Amino acid sequence: MTELPLTRLEAGRIAAAAKRASGLSWAEIAAKLDRSPVWATSAVLGQQPLDADQAATLGQLLDLPPDVVTALQLPPARGADAVDLTDPLVYRLHEMVQVYGSSLRELVTEEFGDGIVSAIDFEIGLERVADPKGDRAVITLNGKFLPYRVF
Amino acid sequence: MTELPLTRLEAGRIAAAAKRASGLSWAEIAAKLDRSPVWATSAVLGQQPLDADQAATLGQLLDLPPDVVTALQLPPARGADAVDLTDPLVYRLHEMVQVYGSSLRELVTEEFGDGIVSAIDFEIGLERVADPKGDRAVITLNGKFLPYRVF
Amino acid sequence: MTELPLTRLEAGRIAAAAKRASGLSWAEIAAKLDRSPVWATSAVLGQQPLDADQAATLGQLLDLPPDVVTALQLPPARGADAVDLTDPLVYRLHEMVQVYGSSLRELVTEEFGDGIVSAIDFEIGLERVADPKGDRAVITLNGKFLPYRVF
Amino acid sequence: MTELPLTRLEAGRIAAAAKRASGLSWAEIAAKLDRSPVWATSAVLGQQPLDADQAATLGQLLDLPPDVVTALQLPPARGADAVDLTDPLVYRLHEMVQVYGSSLRELVTEEFGDGIVSAIDFEIGLERVADPKGDRAVITLNGKFLPYRVF
Amino acid sequence: MTELPLTRLEAGRIAAAAKRASGLSWAEIAAKLDRSPVWATSAVLGQQPLDADQAATLGQLLDLPPDVVTALQLPPARGADAVDLTDPLVYRLHEMVQVYGSSLRELVTEEFGDGIVSAIDFEIGLERVADPKGDRAVITLNGKFLPYRVF
Amino acid sequence: MTELPLTRLEAGRIAAAAKRASGLSWAEIAAKLDRSPVWATSAVLGQQPLDADQAATLGQLLDLPPDVVTALQLPPARGADAVDLTDPLVYRLHEMVQVYGSSLRELVTEEFGDGIVSAIDFEIGLERVADPKGDRAVITLNGKFLPYRVF
Amino acid sequence: MTELPLTRLEAGRIAAAAKRASGLSWAEIAAKLDRSPVWATSAVLGQQPLDADQAATLGQLLDLPPDVVTALQLPPARGADAVDLTDPLVYRLHEMVQVYGSSLRELVTEEFGDGIVSAIDFEIGLERVADPKGDRAVITLNGKFLPYRVF
Amino acid sequence: MTELPLTRLEAGRIAAAAKRASGLSWAEIAAKLDRSPVWATSAVLGQQPLDADQAATLGQLLDLPPDVVTALQLPPARGADAVDLTDPLVYRLHEMVQVYGSSLRELVTEEFGDGIVSAIDFEIGLERVADPKGDRAVITLNGKFLPYRVF
Amino acid sequence: MTELPLTRLEAGRIAAAAKRASGLSWAEIAAKLDRSPVWATSAVLGQQPLDADQAATLGQLLDLPPDVVTALQLPPARGADAVDLTDPLVYRLHEMVQVYGSSLRELVTEEFGDGIVSAIDFEIGLERVADPKGDRAVITLNGKFLPYRVF
Amino acid sequence: MTELPLTRLEAGRIAAAAKRASGLSWAEIAAKLDRSPVWATSAVLGQQPLDADQAATLGQLLDLPPDVVTALQLPPARGADAVDLTDPLVYRLHEMVQVYGSSLRELVTEEFGDGIVSAIDFEIGLERVADPKGDRAVITLNGKFLPYRVF
Repeated sequence: MTELPLTRLEAGRIAAAAKRASGLSWAEIAAKLDRSPVWATSAVLGQQPLDADQAATLGQLLDLPPDVVTALQLPPARGADAVDLTDPLVYRLHEMVQVYGSSLRELVTEEFGDGIVSAIDFEIGLERVADPKGDRAVITLNGKFLPYRVF
Repeated sequence: MTELPLTRLEAGRIAAAAKRASGLSWAEIAAKLDRSPVWATSAVLGQQPLDADQAATLGQLLDLPPDVVTALQLPPARGADAVDLTDPLVYRLHEMVQVYGSSLRELVTEEFGDGIVSAIDFEIGLERVADPKGDRAVITLNGKFLPYRVF
Repeated sequence: MTELPLTRLEAGRIAAAAKRASGLSWAEIAAKLDRSPVWATSAVLGQQPLDADQAATLGQLLDLPPDVVTALQLPPARGADAVDLTDPLVYRLHEMVQVYGSSLRELVTEEFGDGIVSAIDFEIGLERVADPKGDRAVITLNGKFLPYRVF
Repeated sequence: MTELPLTRLEAGRIAAAAKRASGLSWAEIAAKLDRSPVWATSAVLGQQPLDADQAATLGQLLDLPPDVVTALQLPPARGADAVDLTDPLVYRLHEMVQVYGSSLRELVTEEFGDGIVSAIDFEIGLERVADPKGDRAVITLNGKFLPYRVF
Repeated sequence: MTELPLTRLEAGRIAAAAKRASGLSWAEIAAKLDRSPVWATSAVLGQQPLDADQAATLGQLLDLPPDVVTALQLPPARGADAVDLTDPLVYRLHEMVQVYGSSLRELVTEEFGDGIVSAIDFEIGLERVADPKGDRAVITLNGKFLPYRVF
Repeated sequence: MTELPLTRLEAGRIAAAAKRASGLSWAEIAAKLDRSPVWATSAVLGQQPLDADQAATLGQLLDLPPDVVTALQLPPARGADAVDLTDPLVYRLHEMVQVYGSSLRELVTEEFGDGIVSAIDFEIGLERVADPKGDRAVITLNGKFLPYRVF
Repeated sequence: MTELPLTRLEAGRIAAAAKRASGLSWAEIAAKLDRSPVWATSAVLGQQPLDADQAATLGQLLDLPPDVVTALQLPPARGADAVDLTDPLVYRLHEMVQVYGSSLRELVTEEFGDGIVSAIDFEIGLERVADPKGDRAVITLNGKFLPYRVF
Repeated sequence: MTELPLTRLEAGRIAAAAKRASGLSWAEIAAKLDRSPVWATSAVLGQQPLDADQAATLGQLLDLPPDVVTALQLPPARGADAVDLTDPLVYRLHEMVQVYGSSLRELVTEEFGDGIVSAIDFEIGLERVADPKGDRAVITLNGKFLPYRVF
Repeated sequence: MTELPLTRLEAGRIAAAAKRASGLSWAEIAAKLDRSPVWATSAVLGQQPLDADQAATLGQLLDLPPDVVTALQLPPARGADAVDLTDPLVYRLHEMVQVYGSSLRELVTEEFGDGIVSAIDFEIGLERVADPKGDRAVITLNGKFLPYRVF
Repeated sequence: MTELPLTRLEAGRIAAAAKRASGLSWAEIAAKLDRSPVWATSAVLGQQPLDADQAATLGQLLDLPPDVVTALQLPPARGADAVDLTDPLVYRLHEMVQVYGSSLRELVTEEFGDGIVSAIDFEIGLERVADPKGDRAVITLNGKFLPYRVF
């Protein structure tokens, strides 16, 4: 029987294992791709598109076989399979949406009008902030406001 | 039959309707409570605790009946009922977690070690950033890193 | 106990009943609101925002009591409660997405690149097209392409 | 143990990978099958039936092995497995049904009477419309109205 | 607060209770509506549309108050709320679809080609057939075959 | 590692592929098994039991390997895995139960008393009925009425 | 607005409360209905049909208002709403099916052939068996074997 | 890559296939294990623990390879994967819990007090009872009553 | 229409509101009931049974109307409705089961053999332990081991 | 095709099988890792991180192949896949949360204020306590209280 090609998420899983074995940091990989660390990590795992050059760069960097390099160029996998919402770290991000989603909806609507904050024209950053009581992670979500069209 | 008391979310719904009728902004309400706008909005809607003084302040400000003022002091409602995840604005926050949750897990673990970003020792801010291509909403999530205890 | 105010969907249900009793068509209501029939119907049912003037117009037109006119000005209800996906007419729209969603994803990506078709900067039209084998409904979905931001 | 034959969706996944490798566009494939781009894409992915000739045409065009050509002739896979509703592009189509489904039901019923818009006697088109503020995707759903039988 | 109007299913529940009290059979009610028993029962319960005359006929027959007669004219309720699939009698109908659905799909496709059996251009009958080993219920589903459109 | 034996549904999938390759119709297969077409199709796909003789007959007819012939004799697979309820053809059968299930419950109870229509002492037939407006599929469900035992 | 009549389950809840207030045991109620305790309890709660005489008997015994007596004659409520499967006592019955369901299927099929144990031509008993290590509850499920019809 | 060991359920599936091939009855297997038929069947399928001797006995009896004999000694699989609740025979057991669960809860509580019937200190039997109207399966559930601890 | 009696959970909600208004602590209420704080809190909220004396004690203590005192004597509500698993505090208890459930199963089985830790013959305690880095909550789950019966 | 690397849970499953074959107890393994038994068991199964040294120690102890040793160093798997909540032993832990979760929320809030008990800065112990009526398992959950931040 003809073998099924690797999926985008499977390629990401292989690449992530190779990354661990390589000893490279995500920041170093991001620098090679000339992208921010969040975007680069997301691209390796499978949530952003990689063109042939970018996939080849990763292939060299992480010593990946050709079929993995090919599969890294598949369309991104951004659906529910891209994440395990029940993982404790991810769940807390989900819980923040649960607890503060209604407030954000109220405040965005009051400030901007009827619309949404784009998850597409959007970027995200992560920073470590030193704190004597325990360092903090600051995640910045930056999305364009999109007003509902009236017709 | 003895009447059921108002729930915390019902009190929030009545208070939000009164807020709309009052013409006050969330920022003005926040100023009266001496809290940030996100916290204050969240408290009125039902996701943060209000003590008797704070509830009384809201009662005067929004002209709320006594049973609503009482119900505003009930424990916060932070479960799944607190938000409609399928609302388009909220869904996009959820989608951000779906698309970037795996990357954030990788990056937080690499930077901080085995642990999570607290959703409890946590604060959130919302800012409007002017942009000629369309203004942007910048949401800042700021949580303490908590390492897993080894025992 | 203080009474709960009407929700946006409840106001829509009352307005729809009043519309039926009035004998007015949706096109006539749309003309009064100076909007397209789909937008106007959607606004009455609860999925688009109405300002005080628009709500008052509807109140006069459909002879609605003041609390309904007030509730028509609540934020739109665009979550899963806004529709019954298992209603046979609606289900067929859902099935179209099920059957053709993967193809549309392929074609949009090939034509436009990595991104989505906006459901916000979006309008929708419905037209009847006469056909000797049975008239047809033509629904036009018109959304702006939004490319994913690279960062 | 006897090997399981490829499913229709697996054949579609292999064919889609071959299409990417071939450099052909969906429009070119559609021309070879003498069908519209949406139908042709849908057929390759697995949602429309292909007869032996059409499958052979695709086999030659995309250099597919015989078991894939055989599997392309299996009955179409139009169930929930045919699409990932949580993919961001597809989700927005789903959200359009969520937001406008109730209105469309009202308007179709008013215009045509008690019935549904067929998802079977149905065709769908996709067009790019240039727009200085950003090009738009126009998706046309064209289905026959079917009245409920009274008995 | 303005009272919510009765829903179509609530009107059906009141009408069914009135039917029980009246001592009339479903066949007698069907005769008054000049429809088959299945259609008439379905219409009273809420799954078929009733015009003003039909609703008035039922109102007289079952001695229903005016708001119930009005609500009987609401659009039919044919979604998942129309039935309890876990009711033992209904569940067995569901189980028949579970057990024989795949076979029927094979046989309809072989006999008619690529398409479906309409649930809209459709009628249903129920007959009692005497049998010495225990009488049998014969349910006849009669639907038009609809071929998928090729485009 | 010891290999897992084929499941009943896997054997059915292999047999159905062999049936397609053989050019035989379901009616011809049914004739060889001396059963009705619905039962025979259902048995090949996996929802009815086959004894050693029947499995051998199918093995010869469809040129099946011995492990498939063995697996065809496994107990039937009549659970939810036996069918894809979201397949458009099957879904319409499901929708008929959704729309008419409550009426059938009312009518069966009125006619027969408290009980159910058996899905076990049950047979099903499919017939094509020519119709100038489009041929029709008539599906006959014939089940014994079973009264609830009173104890 | 016309008031909705009591449902069968609501009538059962009122009757069960009245039973508690009355001090009567289920066995005493069963004796008055001339039925076994399981059937009688089940009928009061709403899972068995009661005719006018039986409902009247209960009405007198438990001092129920006329609308409750009427509602006790509604068709039984045997769907998923009839029980809370997550109640600890009920869950253990469910767990028995989970743990032993596959074995019972094997053994019934070996002993009786292809078929099921009826849940309709069925009775159930509950007995207390004294045991020095702690008394035991013995539940007897007694159902007719029904063979699948071959056609 | 290191191969995954067989799971307990996979070992049960292989053993059940070997049992069918062997021509042995469940009663004969039970006799070899010196257990009741229900327990023995349950143990082979995977819901009871087998020690090394018992597994070896089964290995000899059913001619099982060593890795299957090893896997038969894994901890029992008693979770939801152990059964298909939608199988018609099993579903009827589930339906009995649905229909009679509330009554049993009432009766057990009245007879024994606040507690549950153990699914652990529990045994189950199956007996065939001849009946001129059709033989019956009598399933006996025998569990210790466990009172809730008060503290 | 006859009014529905209060449910056990509704009575618990009213009692909890009265407790808040009373200024009493849970420990004080527990002392009056002569029970531990966890049991007493659980009983007031609805998860443990209260006899007439205990309900009367609570009625006096919290100034509850007679129908609430009656409803406090209803059977306990220990099903899924008894708790909101998505509440952040409760979710973390759930997450502990998610993360450590498999390990506990391994360790209990190794130590005690095949069986479970009773949730019925069970008690639970909560203690505050001072800690310079932040006080800790120590929850003690104490359940009898119950071995599976072999039969 | 490039082979997928073992997942963390698969490595845990292989290690657990090797542990069973080795005859070592969890306590012995824990001693080698210099951790408590619960942590060590949890780490082998996959819910705690293992560094290269710890994985090598386990590799030697349990005679694991190199790819398993590598996979043991993958990030922990603490999501819903880490446990089967429907396993009877685990379910009872879940049920304890269901029955006592609301009470614990009340008591923790009263004692500590608005916050949660950490599942991260958390440890868990299991002890066997002899009891003439049957030994008991005492599980101690020890988590830091974390107050909600006010901002």
